[in-house]
Amino acid sequence: MQRYKMVLEYDGTAFHGYQVQPNQRTVQGTIEEVLKNMTKGQEIKVHGSGRTDAGVHAIGQTIHFDLPLNIPCERMINAMNSQMPRDILFKSCEIVDENFHVRYSAKGKWYRYIVDLDHFVNPFKRFYTGHFPYQIDLARIKEASQDLLGEHDFTSFAASGGAIVDKVRTIYYVNVDFDAEKNELILDFIGNGFLYNMVRIMTALLLEIGSGKRPVGDVKRVIAAKNRLECQGTAPASGLYLYRVFYEEIPEIYRMDREK
Amino acid sequence: MQRYKMVLEYDGTAFHGYQVQPNQRTVQGTIEEVLKNMTKGQEIKVHGSGRTDAGVHAIGQTIHFDLPLNIPCERMINAMNSQMPRDILFKSCEIVDENFHVRYSAKGKWYRYIVDLDHFVNPFKRFYTGHFPYQIDLARIKEASQDLLGEHDFTSFAASGGAIVDKVRTIYYVNVDFDAEKNELILDFIGNGFLYNMVRIMTALLLEIGSGKRPVGDVKRVIAAKNRLECQGTAPASGLYLYRVFYEEIPEIYRMDREK
Repeated sequence: MQRYKMVLEYDGTAFHGYQVQPNQRTVQGTIEEVLKNMTKGQEIKVHGSGRTDAGVHAIGQTIHFDLPLNIPCERMINAMNSQMPRDILFKSCEIVDENFHVRYSAKGKWYRYIVDLDHFVNPFKRFYTGHFPYQIDLARIKEASQDLLGEHDFTSFAASGGAIVDKVRTIYYVNVDFDAEKNELILDFIGNGFLYNMVRIMTALLLEIGSGKRPVGDVKRVIAAKNRLECQGTAPASGLYLYRVFYEEIPEIYRMDREK
Repeated sequence: MQRYKMVLEYDGTAFHGYQVQPNQRTVQGTIEEVLKNMTKGQEIKVHGSGRTDAGVHAIGQTIHFDLPLNIPCERMINAMNSQMPRDILFKSCEIVDENFHVRYSAKGKWYRYIVDLDHFVNPFKRFYTGHFPYQIDLARIKEASQDLLGEHDFTSFAASGGAIVDKVRTIYYVNVDFDAEKNELILDFIGNGFLYNMVRIMTALLLEIGSGKRPVGDVKRVIAAKNRLECQGTAPASGLYLYRVFYEEIPEIYRMDREK
């Protein structure tokens, strides 16, 4: 029995999210199906670093599973990719010891949200970006985003439905970039964990600040309110990417929270 | 009655091609449906500059239609886009006189083919590129591509099924670029017209030359043979874009055929 840790990317458009659901096409279900074939019928449970919702993408989702086979990592990548549908791609593989758990061993996660700022939705981006066709002030978004840094109770940023009681999380890094050629806003968030829909809610709030609908200091106020009603927008799933999961300590260059 | 000329882009993935077909979702059918709503039930025939196959995309498809309404162009773009599904986007509009015909008035067309060179198919590119996971020699492709320039009988490059008898076309411009960041090959072809599947067949031939499967001088030989059996590959629809239709004379910078 060997424990495999694998990093994969997927286009979330045609999946009902990461997590297995009956009669739905999911990322986990698709991978478990392939592993079942590989082991001639054994049920192999695949553990993910976290769920992604329907339509949410991954550049660096990470999974682990135990396999009663001795397949070297390089062959494993090829074996998986040759059996995977074209919307999932395995990128790396590592044999880890049995103390490694893809969720509990994670030190942090990096999410990216991409917003298309074109007036109309670009046909080629409709499944791969959010869309905000209003005038924005980039400096306001950058300034406001920094108030998310550090340890906070993010109750205001948690969609209902989550079973999690402790809503304190630490955000290490927030960066907002504008890609002029693509007319896209790229928002990066690195933290020790994120509540359900938290990145999409933070993005919606920052966009409302950028368009002038809210004052630039509103992030602080919304955090302090600990009330989801203060911030009801949720940016669409299509713009969200699980970009990377950290199993090493978060590199110093991403520890913006320590500079404060 | 006014004749409108409009330029549009579309993601061809979810269409059964440009041309109307019974019980199929097509670009032309989708547009005619919207115009029917706009005119409260009148059948408005939409003329395209040319068909694109299922899965083929457009950045600059051009259409014309006659409308018994007096809608200014700017409002027309907004009216169309607000009723269009998200995989079609209208970009420009012009009122033209009744002698203008989107097919017969065209002076040339620009097609682009994008090839992803990654080992495995990238999940985010699977509908938007072709895929060629082999070592290629860019210089060989560039050199071979220049033999396509000028007026030739392109019988070897025409898929069967076309009703067209005259297979002489002139290619004005061929350019091959490599985007290192994306690991993509971009092939541009401008000509006075293209036969059915011609761009996809030319692309397949150039890739076979690039990978060393064929000699670099093979383009000349295949053209001279006037036999489709000499060149049986067809690059997939997903990498092909109708990039622009020219109604002015082809600009001098694209007249590479005159330099020969």
